[in-house]
Amino acid sequence: MYPRPIHQLIQAFAKLPGVGPRTAERFVFHLLAKGKQDVTYLADALRGLVAMVRSCTMCFDFSDTSPCALCRDDGRDTALLCIVAEPADVQVIERSGAYRGRYFVLRGAIDPTDDEAQARLKTAELFHRVQTDAGIQEIILAFNPDVAGETTMLTLGRRIQEIRPLTRVSRLARGLPMGSDLRYADDVTLSNAMTHRVNT
Amino acid sequence: MYPRPIHQLIQAFAKLPGVGPRTAERFVFHLLAKGKQDVTYLADALRGLVAMVRSCTMCFDFSDTSPCALCRDDGRDTALLCIVAEPADVQVIERSGAYRGRYFVLRGAIDPTDDEAQARLKTAELFHRVQTDAGIQEIILAFNPDVAGETTMLTLGRRIQEIRPLTRVSRLARGLPMGSDLRYADDVTLSNAMTHRVNT
Repeated sequence: MYPRPIHQLIQAFAKLPGVGPRTAERFVFHLLAKGKQDVTYLADALRGLVAMVRSCTMCFDFSDTSPCALCRDDGRDTALLCIVAEPADVQVIERSGAYRGRYFVLRGAIDPTDDEAQARLKTAELFHRVQTDAGIQEIILAFNPDVAGETTMLTLGRRIQEIRPLTRVSRLARGLPMGSDLRYADDVTLSNAMTHRVNT
Repeated sequence: MYPRPIHQLIQAFAKLPGVGPRTAERFVFHLLAKGKQDVTYLADALRGLVAMVRSCTMCFDFSDTSPCALCRDDGRDTALLCIVAEPADVQVIERSGAYRGRYFVLRGAIDPTDDEAQARLKTAELFHRVQTDAGIQEIILAFNPDVAGETTMLTLGRRIQEIRPLTRVSRLARGLPMGSDLRYADDVTLSNAMTHRVNT
């Protein structure tokens, strides 16, 4: 029913995560109402992404330079390496302001049931980095506290200690999130918070 | 914190309706994970929109031809003209399958407090069409049943009857939506449904 160019753009938008055909339609009609400039801006930004964004060869984060700005930054603590699943996780940790070391992006979590995803993981690159980067003293495994994340941290932690005994292999603390209510905490969270309780 | 091309695309996506910076980030990281082909497809579809979509000079719907396919379709009933606010409304009515006449897209509703929006309305073009298209026998005002829509239908209805007395100027029926529950209907809807009750 729609003219072809409108139909095609709806289909392209509908491929984005969480965007159904109705939302995609809203996007298209919004752009049609806004006019040429907004559409061109978005199209140019997309082309910029393809043309300029690559993987940093040191940390495998997305960057427009390689090594990326973070890996080149002399102000970072090179004794610390934080391993995360996805590039977005780097931004989340950076925003917290609580970490001043370097990163390594595994590009996923270890999932023995998904061979294809396993092939994309930068596991070999990580182990090479651990073996050759003599400055590393502590590795922080910052994966999600879910089954895939726990599996990944267990597997990586064991293998890293085999390859090269480090001062410390750590993971993020588990406990009650800020602003939460004890009564609504799930059992595992509460049990973790109790086990890892700290002195006041 | 993000490399510039990523930052720019996040900003471009965040201009879409209902898309905040977090959702825009998800879109970008999704595209980065999917790779070049998906990004190029979306960029090309956007360029297609700018290059190929124009206004139909008869009904002011968006189209890749002018007159649009619907205005050129000889199978439509030319005695009926349905006036809607937005191009998307044409699609909604077409989907219902309940209408086989032609359309006119006003490109908004009449809002006396917004001069800029008023200037964009195709009111003059509508009145010209009503005056010159001798075949029209009924005009259906299909605006939303809200304040702006009611104002528009009142104003247009009055003016159209002045310009050219038609057999009928009508509007969509108001009543209970299909699948709704009497207990959750608002007072105005219920009162409309009662006033416009039909024989079984």
